[in-house]
Amino acid sequence: MAELTLSTVGRVMRKAGVGRASTDGKEGLRSLLESHAVEIASRAVVFAEHAGRKTVKAEDISLAIM
Amino acid sequence: MAELTLSTVGRVMRKAGVGRASTDGKEGLRSLLESHAVEIASRAVVFAEHAGRKTVKAEDISLAIM
Repeated sequence: MAELTLSTVGRVMRKAGVGRASTDGKEGLRSLLESHAVEIASRAVVFAEHAGRKTVKAEDISLAIM
Repeated sequence: MAELTLSTVGRVMRKAGVGRASTDGKEGLRSLLESHAVEIASRAVVFAEHAGRKTVKAEDISLAIM
């Protein structure tokens, strides 16, 4: 189910100034990020189709977060 | 700079029903996700410190998205 590894999530957290994170902390953030990504990507598909394309481009992502 | 690989972002997009995505589409979503993660994690650190901890836990992530 999860696509992001906990070590990836941990690296992003360290970038944000997190010194230490528990496993459940990383899992919580991972779950949020994946939901957010799926939500944006689902909207982006609609915009790509609206433009007559099958390929999602950066412009679709931009519209998806408008 | 980027912590998430484009192939990871691509997998998450496929999960959301994206058939094809251009490289700039994946890069756009990656950039968004990383910014979002850094924003949440930065707030979570504050909540962990507020609770007298150095370790970020799931409860801090929950507060960070309240």
